[in-house]
Amino acid sequence: MTEQYLEDFRAGQTFRSGRIRIDANRIKSFAAEFDPQPFHLDDTAAQKTAFKGLAASGWHTAALAMKLAVDMNPCPRHPLLGLGVDNLRWMAPVRPGDTLRIESEVVGLNPSKTKPQGVVLIKYTLYNQNNEAVYTFTPIGIIPSRPK
Amino acid sequence: MTEQYLEDFRAGQTFRSGRIRIDANRIKSFAAEFDPQPFHLDDTAAQKTAFKGLAASGWHTAALAMKLAVDMNPCPRHPLLGLGVDNLRWMAPVRPGDTLRIESEVVGLNPSKTKPQGVVLIKYTLYNQNNEAVYTFTPIGIIPSRPK
Repeated sequence: MTEQYLEDFRAGQTFRSGRIRIDANRIKSFAAEFDPQPFHLDDTAAQKTAFKGLAASGWHTAALAMKLAVDMNPCPRHPLLGLGVDNLRWMAPVRPGDTLRIESEVVGLNPSKTKPQGVVLIKYTLYNQNNEAVYTFTPIGIIPSRPK
Repeated sequence: MTEQYLEDFRAGQTFRSGRIRIDANRIKSFAAEFDPQPFHLDDTAAQKTAFKGLAASGWHTAALAMKLAVDMNPCPRHPLLGLGVDNLRWMAPVRPGDTLRIESEVVGLNPSKTKPQGVVLIKYTLYNQNNEAVYTFTPIGIIPSRPK
């Protein structure tokens, strides 16, 4: 959990986060600000949708996953920053009261040919308290090389 | 702006959103909850980072883009829901006081071979008040076919 530089990462390395709980009030207030659709805003309305009940906005889920990722940052000397994200998928609804955690794995390492840094691809998967995978994303992270 | 079914979409169709302003206090409070890193939390600390000043969390930007997308929903009879997102990229920092808007374009249409629905790929690009593209994402949206 204290990798420092690009050279410290290996494909297949794994990291685990702490846990975070999501409640109905925050699901609704997040949705009111950013994703005001009935299945994120109101229990009764949500029952009549494909979700069959209140579910968190996928972007609320994504933001909570970022919080877990920052707290577990596998490379704490460097910011957790990415050019973007690949393979962002929502697999199952996140419900009020769910407790979420991340398992992650290094799936790619691409040293730059021109700069003292490289791309580290870490696949993050978010699980609920039933060990059901609900969300996954693979940020395109930039990590500096070890100084010579 | 009132497409109803899969058959109403055409590659190359474009849509434009309204505008939304982001301020420093919300950048900091969003970051405190979801992405607590110095360049999103504190002006002075942010000056010393690669961002050279306070910048919004990429997930805050993503959430604001969702709000603009929901408000402009090109297919208002159906929820704006996706299996996931492809090609999510942050191209430039979002700063306090920026005013953001979306331009979007239908870039893919894939009718299902087995169900009365299809995938509509709409590429959304978020611009700031200087017409600089700051963020893009392409949700994998499911839209029903017109009833026979």
